Amino acid sequence: MIRFDSDYIEGAHESILERLYETNNEQLPGYGMDYHTDTARRYIRELCGADVDVHFMTGGTQANMTIIASMLRPHQGVIAPDSGHIAGHETGAIESIGHKVLELENSHGKIAAEQVKIAVEAHWNDPTHEHMPQPKMVYISQPTEAGTLYSNDELTRLRDVCTHNNLYLMIDGARIGYALASESNDVSIEDIARLCDVFYIGGTKVGALFGEAVVITNEVIKSDFRYIMKQKGGMLAKGRLLGIQFEVLFEDGLYFKISKHAIEMAKRLAQAFEEKQIEMYAPATTNQIFPILTDAQIDTLKTEYAFHVWEEVGASRKAIRLCTSWSTNHGDVDALIKDIRKL
Amino acid sequence: MIRFDSDYIEGAHESILERLYETNNEQLPGYGMDYHTDTARRYIRELCGADVDVHFMTGGTQANMTIIASMLRPHQGVIAPDSGHIAGHETGAIESIGHKVLELENSHGKIAAEQVKIAVEAHWNDPTHEHMPQPKMVYISQPTEAGTLYSNDELTRLRDVCTHNNLYLMIDGARIGYALASESNDVSIEDIARLCDVFYIGGTKVGALFGEAVVITNEVIKSDFRYIMKQKGGMLAKGRLLGIQFEVLFEDGLYFKISKHAIEMAKRLAQAFEEKQIEMYAPATTNQIFPILTDAQIDTLKTEYAFHVWEEVGASRKAIRLCTSWSTNHGDVDALIKDIRKL
Amino acid sequence: MIRFDSDYIEGAHESILERLYETNNEQLPGYGMDYHTDTARRYIRELCGADVDVHFMTGGTQANMTIIASMLRPHQGVIAPDSGHIAGHETGAIESIGHKVLELENSHGKIAAEQVKIAVEAHWNDPTHEHMPQPKMVYISQPTEAGTLYSNDELTRLRDVCTHNNLYLMIDGARIGYALASESNDVSIEDIARLCDVFYIGGTKVGALFGEAVVITNEVIKSDFRYIMKQKGGMLAKGRLLGIQFEVLFEDGLYFKISKHAIEMAKRLAQAFEEKQIEMYAPATTNQIFPILTDAQIDTLKTEYAFHVWEEVGASRKAIRLCTSWSTNHGDVDALIKDIRKL
Amino acid sequence: MIRFDSDYIEGAHESILERLYETNNEQLPGYGMDYHTDTARRYIRELCGADVDVHFMTGGTQANMTIIASMLRPHQGVIAPDSGHIAGHETGAIESIGHKVLELENSHGKIAAEQVKIAVEAHWNDPTHEHMPQPKMVYISQPTEAGTLYSNDELTRLRDVCTHNNLYLMIDGARIGYALASESNDVSIEDIARLCDVFYIGGTKVGALFGEAVVITNEVIKSDFRYIMKQKGGMLAKGRLLGIQFEVLFEDGLYFKISKHAIEMAKRLAQAFEEKQIEMYAPATTNQIFPILTDAQIDTLKTEYAFHVWEEVGASRKAIRLCTSWSTNHGDVDALIKDIRKL
Repeated sequence: MIRFDSDYIEGAHESILERLYETNNEQLPGYGMDYHTDTARRYIRELCGADVDVHFMTGGTQANMTIIASMLRPHQGVIAPDSGHIAGHETGAIESIGHKVLELENSHGKIAAEQVKIAVEAHWNDPTHEHMPQPKMVYISQPTEAGTLYSNDELTRLRDVCTHNNLYLMIDGARIGYALASESNDVSIEDIARLCDVFYIGGTKVGALFGEAVVITNEVIKSDFRYIMKQKGGMLAKGRLLGIQFEVLFEDGLYFKISKHAIEMAKRLAQAFEEKQIEMYAPATTNQIFPILTDAQIDTLKTEYAFHVWEEVGASRKAIRLCTSWSTNHGDVDALIKDIRKL
Repeated sequence: MIRFDSDYIEGAHESILERLYETNNEQLPGYGMDYHTDTARRYIRELCGADVDVHFMTGGTQANMTIIASMLRPHQGVIAPDSGHIAGHETGAIESIGHKVLELENSHGKIAAEQVKIAVEAHWNDPTHEHMPQPKMVYISQPTEAGTLYSNDELTRLRDVCTHNNLYLMIDGARIGYALASESNDVSIEDIARLCDVFYIGGTKVGALFGEAVVITNEVIKSDFRYIMKQKGGMLAKGRLLGIQFEVLFEDGLYFKISKHAIEMAKRLAQAFEEKQIEMYAPATTNQIFPILTDAQIDTLKTEYAFHVWEEVGASRKAIRLCTSWSTNHGDVDALIKDIRKL
Repeated sequence: MIRFDSDYIEGAHESILERLYETNNEQLPGYGMDYHTDTARRYIRELCGADVDVHFMTGGTQANMTIIASMLRPHQGVIAPDSGHIAGHETGAIESIGHKVLELENSHGKIAAEQVKIAVEAHWNDPTHEHMPQPKMVYISQPTEAGTLYSNDELTRLRDVCTHNNLYLMIDGARIGYALASESNDVSIEDIARLCDVFYIGGTKVGALFGEAVVITNEVIKSDFRYIMKQKGGMLAKGRLLGIQFEVLFEDGLYFKISKHAIEMAKRLAQAFEEKQIEMYAPATTNQIFPILTDAQIDTLKTEYAFHVWEEVGASRKAIRLCTSWSTNHGDVDALIKDIRKL
Repeated sequence: MIRFDSDYIEGAHESILERLYETNNEQLPGYGMDYHTDTARRYIRELCGADVDVHFMTGGTQANMTIIASMLRPHQGVIAPDSGHIAGHETGAIESIGHKVLELENSHGKIAAEQVKIAVEAHWNDPTHEHMPQPKMVYISQPTEAGTLYSNDELTRLRDVCTHNNLYLMIDGARIGYALASESNDVSIEDIARLCDVFYIGGTKVGALFGEAVVITNEVIKSDFRYIMKQKGGMLAKGRLLGIQFEVLFEDGLYFKISKHAIEMAKRLAQAFEEKQIEMYAPATTNQIFPILTDAQIDTLKTEYAFHVWEEVGASRKAIRLCTSWSTNHGDVDALIKDIRKL
């Protein structure tokens, strides 16, 4: 079985394991107070070109719930696309800390500034608005769950709506490397740091064993984040493990190099489908591609390959999702292309 | 600086890093559904001699809050020693999920069955008991925060009080290896599995990079634990990392071997203090020792060694805490012993 | 200004105030342990024809959150129509206690058994169901927010789906008097007690100053409800006030008599609209009617009458909501009818 | 049975019932938006001599949890005497909204500024303070659970400690009328409004059917309180009921007059005990008195009177609590005095 079902099917980039090995016997303080973590913080600060706060956490659900807990008062809710990870794939983690996810209909994973504007104005124009959760932040992902990208223009408009309506903007960057490496992308990491109040740079899906680097850009919400990390179970005892991994990923641009590799692998697969004139459910811009196959074609491929069936598209046709990653090798891609051609 | 301030100052046992390296390119499903994790579960089940459920989480606070969330209804509280980790060192994690920690006065980190009995009977005898959190579980640690051990007899009596009062018994085993390896210990892991409803086997402080193996022995509370793990941010995407580590720790008894080493290192230090006729704050039975030093002695040692100042003992004397671990080497211990002799 | 905007615009039925006056100097224990409350409990038990537990609370949001808190584990969610009170009009009260409201599209305020079946089966058929809140109860209202009624057949089918899928069924009966008094109704209060696990009988909107009688019919969820009432701030110190009010409402059928009056008043208004051939947005079966008016007609009426604009229906036409209640008098209805005729 | 066991054993002052009767048919908007509530707000604002926000809630637990929810971030805790109502008599309501109650040892119900200072400094001086709940507010009661009073000087010192340590000061005034009416009192309501950030004026125990007037004096924490009231189930549909009651209590000083009556009744009882040379457990300054009786004396009195046994005082002697209130009549007091003389 060759797996294209997710971007976290293998361990970590070899350089990370090597560095963990080399630093293994260093005696260091815990909880992210070691010098590796400080170095990683500095790399990310430089990358963002801003005086941001950086905290390292082990996973995305943990990062999402900690960030949102640190920013909202009890009666406030978070606007998100109904396809967003916090809306549907975290077992109600956001509700478990007391906040309603205010879902807007997604369009290939995205929501538009205008939708946010309408929702927020509807809230404030309702004379009974005190009887509804108050929208206070917008959560989006770059790239989205559907592998699509917000353009610089789209993000800027979201930022503007947020600013005018006193909302925070949060970007879930669990796969942000694959956004930054995409040919279709026009949003730099400095743009992201400038446009949102908080975001995170995903390691779990981009070369690390695990880890997300939370970046807080808004001065107002910087205070006491570490207390809340600890309270929500997100402060790793051996914080060095996170620091060292992000140090390796960012000291020489490894993060960007391996992200680019994933994109190239996805592109090779996309071309193979294109040659067979197999339609895509959404434009293939990042490391996820969504070809629309017949049930028969799906049955054929699934004997050898692991992937997700994404959504029905008419009768007996379905979009599937194939993920490449930093670890995808040419051999596996060659094998799949060969089998695509035979479909 | 030589560090004796905690048992998580270094990375992981070399065998773990090697195995992570060897398995790095295996393509495996996420979230603990891989075969390594299954193997680790089996090892622990065999060790406990019972049909327990085993779940792997990254840290202790996370394990504590997830276990307690899965077991209590909203109005129920958890009895714990006032020195317990959940009482004082998790930034209110248990309160953050809605439950009051009902603190009992500790005696060198321990609470007695009789104390629990008195507290629970006081609750039920109070005519206004509906106006107070209902005690529903007892949380203790083996070894305790003070490095002491519950005897088999003490644990059995706690179990009996719990059974008679319809309480769950939970054991935090973040350092359980060091309890099991102690010469003073008469409680086996089978005893623990038999006597409590849930406990965990700590990896973070005993040779792993990170990880706690939660063991649920009570059939009633087994259901849906994975939902709550996910909700509380405690389900690692690459669950294999936890499975592989516990596989290594338990396939050939490594866990016990390295725990024993830590105990031997602690013993060497304890003997050095004894030779100097320096008193201990609590009996030195596990990997933590608590010599009582003068302020001058503390000042001398702290130029070269990292350790915690634990508690004032009379005027200008304080108990300090020195931790050994799986990673403590003879060289560091030799150096410290030499300096103890010079005190 | 004559108010038809809600069914809680006046105080209480005169008999209630009189009884409060008469009993004012009785010295009674607090927290619902007095004999009036016991009598009220007995009346309701007799009415339901079953050995139910009865608890009195001051308001609907409070009742909803307390009931749901007492029934769900942390990872479980509650299915509700998207028009349900808990979905949109309680400032996220259910999320504030940790649970996601799993919204289904309403049809004039109602959801169908088949919708619930599809949602629940979708959950369990999803291989990643542990990453989503687990549906564990269904919340509906009788009558609904749109004034419509579930038939006995519809309720029975919902009950069957719940039973087959191990879900609780909860009925919000804030206006249940107006359902029971409706000519279109074929569901008795015994039916309700038999078909659901928990429901409540609203007093606030049906003649009382305030108060909802929570009725728990399922043995499994009866335990410790009073603890949770107290914790959620819903245990009234002078519980007698609730007991006395429900005693008056149910000792001689006052509740049913005044509910019937409200229905008659609504019917008179509905007929007046019918005579003018003004269409209804939803069938007028209870104390709420929803005529569709032009913007000009709305402007005319709102100079003299208070009511809610409910929803746009095409261009420059809107459904409005007019509420009658136990307190609506013939004079106010006559005045409005006269003005309807002039439209 | 004559009841001296609490100050909420009867209904309400007659004037309140009369006013409810007179205003019963007024058609008014809900949720505290009516003119009676506005008038009551104005009275309280004038009383406080400051531009405070005033909100009316039905009970103390509800008020406490709503106030604290509105003021704290998730990782923050509230300092309280261990005898405080939130510490021991609200079934963990504060923990249920996520916050730890940081208990300090009480001295006859009170805590001193110095205790707060020590606790807060201990927090900030601990290098691991991020692993503990951050103290952010101080909760006290005036009068305390033990019927004692803070002096102006004591309150001023608490305020100073709070100001210097960036803590909020909250005063639970469930029985504040009895504090203001006490001869031992030197703290006016203007003092309270000036010294704390938020407090409430209790109605439930001082003449109303129910109701607490929450007074927010600190500008920073005024925003959005009504959202949180609604979310926590504390916004009464017929808010008029609260407005009308506080209107009656404060339009002509009724609140102060009936409070004074309770104090006089308590004083008569205290004198009777004094004449018998029966010692008091705490000074009898408000409406609660705590004579220390032998078990035999207690047995005698309890055949005719309801009261609480408060605490053991040596062998076979106990302090009991007798409560007077706005509703205590001379006849009942005469009867008890007669029986005290016979002891």
